[in-house]
Amino acid sequence: MTQAVQSEIYNYIKQNEHVIEEYIEKLGSFGRLSEGGIVRPVYSDQWFAAHRQLADWMAEAGLEVRADAVGNLWGLHGRKSAGKGYASGSHLDTVKEGGKYDGGLGILAALAAIRFLKELYGEPRLPLEVVALCEEEGSRFSKTFLGSRAITGTLPAEELDENRDAEGISVAEAARACGFNPAQLDSARRTDLAGFIELHIEQGRLLDDVKLEVGIVQAITGTRHMTVTFDGQADHAGTTPMDLRSDALVAAAQAITNINAIALKMGRPAVATVGKLSIEPGATNIVPARVVMTVDMRHSEPDKKAFLICQVEQACRTAAATQRVEVTFEREMDRIPAQMSPEIINLLKATADELGISNMAMVSGAGHDSQVVVEQIPTGMIFVPSKSGRSHSRAEYTPLDQILPGIAVLAQALYKLAY
Amino acid sequence: MTQAVQSEIYNYIKQNEHVIEEYIEKLGSFGRLSEGGIVRPVYSDQWFAAHRQLADWMAEAGLEVRADAVGNLWGLHGRKSAGKGYASGSHLDTVKEGGKYDGGLGILAALAAIRFLKELYGEPRLPLEVVALCEEEGSRFSKTFLGSRAITGTLPAEELDENRDAEGISVAEAARACGFNPAQLDSARRTDLAGFIELHIEQGRLLDDVKLEVGIVQAITGTRHMTVTFDGQADHAGTTPMDLRSDALVAAAQAITNINAIALKMGRPAVATVGKLSIEPGATNIVPARVVMTVDMRHSEPDKKAFLICQVEQACRTAAATQRVEVTFEREMDRIPAQMSPEIINLLKATADELGISNMAMVSGAGHDSQVVVEQIPTGMIFVPSKSGRSHSRAEYTPLDQILPGIAVLAQALYKLAY
Repeated sequence: MTQAVQSEIYNYIKQNEHVIEEYIEKLGSFGRLSEGGIVRPVYSDQWFAAHRQLADWMAEAGLEVRADAVGNLWGLHGRKSAGKGYASGSHLDTVKEGGKYDGGLGILAALAAIRFLKELYGEPRLPLEVVALCEEEGSRFSKTFLGSRAITGTLPAEELDENRDAEGISVAEAARACGFNPAQLDSARRTDLAGFIELHIEQGRLLDDVKLEVGIVQAITGTRHMTVTFDGQADHAGTTPMDLRSDALVAAAQAITNINAIALKMGRPAVATVGKLSIEPGATNIVPARVVMTVDMRHSEPDKKAFLICQVEQACRTAAATQRVEVTFEREMDRIPAQMSPEIINLLKATADELGISNMAMVSGAGHDSQVVVEQIPTGMIFVPSKSGRSHSRAEYTPLDQILPGIAVLAQALYKLAY
Repeated sequence: MTQAVQSEIYNYIKQNEHVIEEYIEKLGSFGRLSEGGIVRPVYSDQWFAAHRQLADWMAEAGLEVRADAVGNLWGLHGRKSAGKGYASGSHLDTVKEGGKYDGGLGILAALAAIRFLKELYGEPRLPLEVVALCEEEGSRFSKTFLGSRAITGTLPAEELDENRDAEGISVAEAARACGFNPAQLDSARRTDLAGFIELHIEQGRLLDDVKLEVGIVQAITGTRHMTVTFDGQADHAGTTPMDLRSDALVAAAQAITNINAIALKMGRPAVATVGKLSIEPGATNIVPARVVMTVDMRHSEPDKKAFLICQVEQACRTAAATQRVEVTFEREMDRIPAQMSPEIINLLKATADELGISNMAMVSGAGHDSQVVVEQIPTGMIFVPSKSGRSHSRAEYTPLDQILPGIAVLAQALYKLAY
């Protein structure tokens, strides 16, 4: 490994930046609405069109293309028989009106990196693979991470029939309609990978704020989603004195104020968010009888996540007692924090430094396929900036010159691992 | 006026309580849903059926029956030529799923009182009238108090065409379909009344709490309805640190907490209620960008009402500034407080005391036709208890024995005024 080789890859990427730009623009056209957002749920027509386009690009790059039982699309460079190899990629589906970078960029970065490595250096010592994971966002079926759970063998077969979309179509039915064979779910499991690297936009504003080129993800935050219900009493807003009310919204408001203060006081990376709230009966002149709200709580350290959850629940109980209302909790989702693999973290950090690419250690506040994959396979993540932190939005944007450094780190790391 | 006469009326009412009970049960059957709530918007089929029933009852009682241009139904006892008379009644329409006492009871109390006076004492010195006002609740058309505004000459003629229901039908069209002649709006104005008394359920729990028989209303609260909009920024709930957010819901929550505290601190009869609240985009994992909420603020004294509004607006501004969000206000409705007529208040108080009926002076926290009528005609109100303060609900209930004292006060007061 010489400095010359390192510069060679990065230079080649810069010279071929139009390839990356064309990939991004073309992939972003599948599912694009006239207003600009992208809707590309798993197994939809638009998703399947994007899937075929990726297969064509992989084939053009000389990769060996195949789709697995749930429709994860793989492009192989090198010989499987040579030993355990390395894969890179991300998810192909989008949120309901997302942007073209979330997920898609990680697939295209891997495709570009492996294509360029092939063009520059030919056959690798160990196999390299691009992967387009079929599903991560949960925008069609209620359960998420279909793709990464299939390849790690953690997707129960019965879920393929039980997990249904809003129209009652099961995962298995939708997958079969695209020509996949979900009955062969076991065959999708990969036990022959030595490592996985996912490039992704940050979906936050930290890199953009400090003007650094890449983030080396140390951990993916643990997330608890909870529904909190406050049950008070509907009363006439004109005739019921303030001191006789059991106002569910006043209780919720006190809870929200304190939840915000709790996460703020714990400091980064603790976050707690009330994003949905509904009121019954919901009339201008009636004291609210019931408020149902969600709380999203995240921390990258298990103990601190548990502490955050305890404090939030206590804040809700205190607010409810103060307002003479009942409070109940329902746990909707719980993901434990995922630590990325130290050897991959170290590799990515060293590679970025060698390439002169400015970088920082980061915690991912969003969930990613890597948190599932890392349970079975050594995994790391590279973040590139998100303009103003915008994501899950048509405003999602990363300029090309802020994408290239991340691809250079990825390509160089794969070179070190497989050549 | 002797104690014997007073007892005579009250005794007669008690002996004929079945008449009142039958009136209430029968009127409450018009528009009743199978689950028990009542839906009887103005000019609907159910409303019109109730209107015809009332006309029949008035005729049976020997009253001279007529409907005016907007469908207010009048039953006259005595001769108009004798001089300015007195009227009593309330509104015939209901809220969307209301009870059978709100409005209806005031009509039936007046009908029973005048019927019993006629049966006991024959012709009065001055004319007495029962009135079923066509509309007060605003459950069909957006503008309210159609009936009382028509009789006080404060209903603009153009509103009859411009005020339309959800299906685009105007007041005038709906009134004509019931056979009324809204083009003759001017003829509905009453300038020949010396006084008006409205009996109504309290719609609050104060009488029920202290176990007193009637409330003598001193004033009807002034009400301001305001829409408050907080504009922050949507951000990913996982990737956006707490200290970088502009969370519209946290701002709203701080405002709601403080609005509640402000009204509580001012003390009765100040009330402030946030009854409706909506969030955009409204997803578990997205920081709320926008919250739109209503604030209902009431006080019976104009200066204190203004002070309350100022404090509420300031609380919203402070909360918005703290959370780095924008706040805007829209005034939706403003009703100035209405003082009831001292001579009617004194008459009702003296009458209740003479009859040995326990009573208290009250402020009405809800709006009533009387607040419109009092602008033109000396007016007073009698409240009877509402079980647990329930109203605008199928749970609205007042037992018959808690209704009779109010009717006794009404009948005795009308006797004093007109005989």
